[in-house]
Amino acid sequence: MLPIAVDAMGGDNAPSAIVAGARRAHEERGIPVVLVGRPDEIGDTGDIPVIAASEVIAMDADPGSSVRTMKDSSLVRAAEAVRDGQASAMVSAGNTGATMASALLRTGRIKGVSRPAIATAIPGPVGPPTVLLDAGANAECRAEWLVQFAQMGAVFARARFEIEKPRVALLSIGEEAGKGSPLVKEAWGLLDAVDWSAQGAEFVGNVEGRDLMGTEADVVVTDGFTGNVALKTLEGCAKNIISSLLEAFESTPEAKEASEKLLPALLPLYQRFNADSYGGAMLLGTKGPCIISHGSSSDEAMMNAISVASEMVTSDLVGKIGAAVQA
Amino acid sequence: MLPIAVDAMGGDNAPSAIVAGARRAHEERGIPVVLVGRPDEIGDTGDIPVIAASEVIAMDADPGSSVRTMKDSSLVRAAEAVRDGQASAMVSAGNTGATMASALLRTGRIKGVSRPAIATAIPGPVGPPTVLLDAGANAECRAEWLVQFAQMGAVFARARFEIEKPRVALLSIGEEAGKGSPLVKEAWGLLDAVDWSAQGAEFVGNVEGRDLMGTEADVVVTDGFTGNVALKTLEGCAKNIISSLLEAFESTPEAKEASEKLLPALLPLYQRFNADSYGGAMLLGTKGPCIISHGSSSDEAMMNAISVASEMVTSDLVGKIGAAVQA
Repeated sequence: MLPIAVDAMGGDNAPSAIVAGARRAHEERGIPVVLVGRPDEIGDTGDIPVIAASEVIAMDADPGSSVRTMKDSSLVRAAEAVRDGQASAMVSAGNTGATMASALLRTGRIKGVSRPAIATAIPGPVGPPTVLLDAGANAECRAEWLVQFAQMGAVFARARFEIEKPRVALLSIGEEAGKGSPLVKEAWGLLDAVDWSAQGAEFVGNVEGRDLMGTEADVVVTDGFTGNVALKTLEGCAKNIISSLLEAFESTPEAKEASEKLLPALLPLYQRFNADSYGGAMLLGTKGPCIISHGSSSDEAMMNAISVASEMVTSDLVGKIGAAVQA
Repeated sequence: MLPIAVDAMGGDNAPSAIVAGARRAHEERGIPVVLVGRPDEIGDTGDIPVIAASEVIAMDADPGSSVRTMKDSSLVRAAEAVRDGQASAMVSAGNTGATMASALLRTGRIKGVSRPAIATAIPGPVGPPTVLLDAGANAECRAEWLVQFAQMGAVFARARFEIEKPRVALLSIGEEAGKGSPLVKEAWGLLDAVDWSAQGAEFVGNVEGRDLMGTEADVVVTDGFTGNVALKTLEGCAKNIISSLLEAFESTPEAKEASEKLLPALLPLYQRFNADSYGGAMLLGTKGPCIISHGSSSDEAMMNAISVASEMVTSDLVGKIGAAVQA
């Protein structure tokens, strides 16, 4: 397999956590990796090669103009490595919009795909995570794009979480077919008309925000505005409840002692709900597979993201998405 | 004060939990109450009077047609009691859409209000809750309605949570002014042009889903589709994390023993994040004040909802909303 191109300069903990994660992916899991960035800042990479790139797109830079003007940036060079056959996929914990724009502008869309979408894995208390898309690539969507998101999401859920026949749902504000915004009502009709058995999937109708962590659906589609609001609402909720809990655990000596005894029971929960376990979001629909990791990614998160990228290359996700949207 | 009209027949635990909550509001807090529903099913009301209504709008009934055809339903009769000066406000844990439709069709809109909106209180780890609106009344919105939602929300935050100068924000997918859907971009411009100092409030720009439980804003406005998705996503997330925790607490004898010792530290958290503490959502913009409680409301939740209704009547919320939208 061609190596995974890792943007060494992107993320709050770059380059140290990124390089550490890349080394772990390579050394512990045997995945071929190439780091992209400023060689003098990247430091010791073990035996991982480096593609030199002199510029860094800042976390808060405007995506479109940065990608257009910063041609020697680590993100653009990573995407070009994929385009030029030096790498099989790219991973970045940097500027989300610029990562997306680099992948889209340099590697192009898969034939038949109208718009790429960001797919995220939402863990719940039981079962595999739910794939939510679009989590923010397209603030405004047409109903027919949501159908493609559903098709791409089903392919992803099968490849990523081994869900044989993914149940696809539409995010709305009521379970009945007539509930929701005009976009949702139109999308419902289009989704209901798809021959899902030919796609190895199933359309189960509308779900609500409360079902995102549940087991009602394997793939939930929505426009990128609603999806991003829902994703960030979930992240904020989990973070606030967990930080309140941790504070309560420390509030008295008795609570502290008791909470230490609870640790073995709580650790599996932490693993399950921790975003780092899932390796980040995936941009679906571009010819170059692209993983968008959280800005705060640790070396563990980066190692997992690189593993996911490698699995998605091995399973020919891009070819399967092309087949699904052209079916 | 005129009594609060309570729909005795609405909610998963109706009429028993509703009557119990109404009695507690009356007996423990001295609030005048009138129950509306089937006298033979309501049972012993202590000295609370009953307005007889023979029909019950089911939780899953179509709101518009039910309110039009079921003229002797408890919801319609409760709204008519407010309209006819027999009650000062209404409270229901029944069908949300039908509650809204009853209040709107029977009591009418406050002069100057384009569309009523549902306001909900979102608790966070610290500080007063954040008021989110519209949480589901209007699946599709115009930008100028969001401005009114902001004005109504600011009045509500001041009356309900004693926030002297509420900070109003717009829910989006990035903090910068240019981020979001076309609706959000247009609403940003309109919100930015309002003379907020004349309203005793302040516009602080965009916030994201992760800020709903934070302290960045006191009032967050959005369309009813996005607001409902965000609210239900929050509820689902909190419920799933808490149920996972409770399961972990029971997972071994050691965990069980330790978790019992943690209870005193966890109880304040439970109080803070428990939806029942806040008494439900409030419909803002109708002449008759209307509280929409959770279908699963307990007697405690009903008592709190009736208290909130009484406080909102005492503080002349309706008059103040009228003044704000006409300013």
